[in-house]
Amino acid sequence: MSRAPRGEIIAVGTELLLGQTVNTNATWLSRRLAEIGVDVFFHTAVGDNIARLRAALEAAAGRSDVVVICGGLGPTEDDVTREALALHLGRPVVRDKGAEAAVRRYFERVGRPMAANNLRQAEVLLDSRAYPNDVGLAVGFRAEKDGVVYIALPGPPHELKTMFDRHVAPDLKRLLPQAAPLVHRYLHFAGIGESALAARLDDVIGAQSDPTIAVYAEPGHVLVRLTTRRADEKAAAEAFSSPMETIIGRLREYYFGEGEGLTLAEAVLKRLQARGWTLAVAESCTGGLVADALASVPGASSVFRLGVVPYQTPMKAAVLGLDAAGLSAHGAVSLWAAEAMARAVQAMSAAEVGLATTCVAGPGLQDDRPIGEAYIGLAVGTRSWATAMRFSGDRSSIRRHVAARALFELFRALEVPDEPMRARDESMTEEG
Amino acid sequence: MSRAPRGEIIAVGTELLLGQTVNTNATWLSRRLAEIGVDVFFHTAVGDNIARLRAALEAAAGRSDVVVICGGLGPTEDDVTREALALHLGRPVVRDKGAEAAVRRYFERVGRPMAANNLRQAEVLLDSRAYPNDVGLAVGFRAEKDGVVYIALPGPPHELKTMFDRHVAPDLKRLLPQAAPLVHRYLHFAGIGESALAARLDDVIGAQSDPTIAVYAEPGHVLVRLTTRRADEKAAAEAFSSPMETIIGRLREYYFGEGEGLTLAEAVLKRLQARGWTLAVAESCTGGLVADALASVPGASSVFRLGVVPYQTPMKAAVLGLDAAGLSAHGAVSLWAAEAMARAVQAMSAAEVGLATTCVAGPGLQDDRPIGEAYIGLAVGTRSWATAMRFSGDRSSIRRHVAARALFELFRALEVPDEPMRARDESMTEEG
Repeated sequence: MSRAPRGEIIAVGTELLLGQTVNTNATWLSRRLAEIGVDVFFHTAVGDNIARLRAALEAAAGRSDVVVICGGLGPTEDDVTREALALHLGRPVVRDKGAEAAVRRYFERVGRPMAANNLRQAEVLLDSRAYPNDVGLAVGFRAEKDGVVYIALPGPPHELKTMFDRHVAPDLKRLLPQAAPLVHRYLHFAGIGESALAARLDDVIGAQSDPTIAVYAEPGHVLVRLTTRRADEKAAAEAFSSPMETIIGRLREYYFGEGEGLTLAEAVLKRLQARGWTLAVAESCTGGLVADALASVPGASSVFRLGVVPYQTPMKAAVLGLDAAGLSAHGAVSLWAAEAMARAVQAMSAAEVGLATTCVAGPGLQDDRPIGEAYIGLAVGTRSWATAMRFSGDRSSIRRHVAARALFELFRALEVPDEPMRARDESMTEEG
Repeated sequence: MSRAPRGEIIAVGTELLLGQTVNTNATWLSRRLAEIGVDVFFHTAVGDNIARLRAALEAAAGRSDVVVICGGLGPTEDDVTREALALHLGRPVVRDKGAEAAVRRYFERVGRPMAANNLRQAEVLLDSRAYPNDVGLAVGFRAEKDGVVYIALPGPPHELKTMFDRHVAPDLKRLLPQAAPLVHRYLHFAGIGESALAARLDDVIGAQSDPTIAVYAEPGHVLVRLTTRRADEKAAAEAFSSPMETIIGRLREYYFGEGEGLTLAEAVLKRLQARGWTLAVAESCTGGLVADALASVPGASSVFRLGVVPYQTPMKAAVLGLDAAGLSAHGAVSLWAAEAMARAVQAMSAAEVGLATTCVAGPGLQDDRPIGEAYIGLAVGTRSWATAMRFSGDRSSIRRHVAARALFELFRALEVPDEPMRARDESMTEEG
């Protein structure tokens, strides 16, 4: 096999098909298999049903090199993985001596009588390799036929993960031809939609082969992922260098950082931390979303001082001290209010930076302003300003977009602190 | 077709196979399809690859009546669902006039130029029925061939859910043979885990046949869904009456209401509204999560006055006015601080009710308190008190649990407003 081995994951359990359980095992296993160099091409979930599990195994046998089956190794009649694999491979179920001893030891240790069906959990297939379960009862195993490797793992995530990392991964690495591993780069962009960004990279994406380039919508931002297969990190870095330069260069004004799982809040906190600055936030329509995004980042408390959600309009005067006459003249959803809120929360907390949001999230109008109208206020040192924008969607979508944009406006403002950026196309700006 | 229609779900997206995204769409759709009376027998996930998506469609065509495809309707070349379905069904892709107008309107409204590839998102199949996307750009559609119904939905969960509930579910209900319709009851519980709740209902669930009873873990609470097939609502109400009485009776102290999609924040806001009371919230470790849960409910502003997130400890004194000596004697994570924060935010906003949270969310310790230690403070009229509890899990899980529990403690306190409930087993309580 000169190409990378192809894998697929079959999850067994009626609870998945009823929507009672999310198939996080497939997600976790996919990452681990990619790290070992297996390309995963299919996930399947089937119920606790021998015929349908056999159908899934038949399909897998025709297209995959490695088939990982998770779940269905419990002690009850409902647990059909062993039987389905036995029928699929034409090989009997046998009891594994080591696993049987482990099950008996477990029940001695906890001082409970062992039910007869618990010994089902010590069963594997004839001529298979047993994988010990160090944190549960059901033994796992690996069997092979016609060049296809089948691996059966228990369904509880903790047992599956422990067994995979301790026993399956080392076994697979020995067994499989070692292709070079997949290596990724993750580039993050905000203030631009997924399709607008993809359009700007149309030619780059069209010409992609190695590294491959994929664009994803993440909550509140857009992710560009580059992937290559290289023997080591140095060779990968060389392969990434030119396309990354092109992509970041073309979208520089929207770029906020690199790394798997990076969030806007994290990028903002890093920039503030680098300057030794602290932050306070006043939110109206976003009602705690910006504060929550910041507080989600471990260690945020070294930067994030204070959040205020003056949700009812009079609170903007009573708590933040906004001028009541100004508030009634401009309205609570206005450039004036956004900027005043940013300055007020900055002063109240003695933070170097104040950030504020106010918008109409709907479903009702506010002060006759249209749904989706939003203002973001910023106070950085002695300067303050506000930006207007408009979002579409429902209440939840508008609130999420405004919160993300507020963090991105702050991120951009921290780039050139003495000269805050002016508005782009979609925004009006005024300086305070 | 006398049996219930059989369904399967095909999720499209390489990010699923790389383990970057969890297939929550399959979980959500499974529940919705079950509610409509469709038995889901398979989930499949494939990458952004026409050949493999076609293979999945072939397999589905031979065994299912309803095939729901989610994802792959974006504007880029990577988005292959339309093309794969066109090839599978032998029918051309055409532009839907209504969807095209909606895409053009969107770009006019936001004042940005439309990229040419955005019109791909207005494409459906010839002789298909278009489903409008009320919260995004990609139109969905339904096509039929050889008695099999194919439904294509956008991948972003918010778009998928909105489209399904508004347009797909009513369409499918008309289309599918209607035996007596499925009727549901949704009962919501908080302050108890999914497995502890299921254990308390073990005999009831074991003996279930009609209505069927299923237990789901929702974010921050537990849902029990009862389902029956009855000709009319009156017959359904009779069938539900006895099991509902048993379930609610057995779990009364955890019950917070009935109805699809009910959240704790909604239940709390309803109780406050019924009394004409307003609410203010002070959050430390939950950092805006409680405020966000409240602000997510349309119309919250008639009740929710103010949120304060005094994230750095000195802010608890500077902004909320907590006694600095008390703060340093008791610590910021303490019964004393929780109660003082609740009283302070109540006074600051002149609301009838104040709610506060403080906890150690980790990963680091705070004041040498163990990770997961949490305090919830309440001020109702002239009374105030705090409750201690302990949660396990990571930072995100602890923050979410504390926020949910804070709302539930408030919900319970509003039951008998003149006599706040005392702590249960797991809590210590002190009165202020």
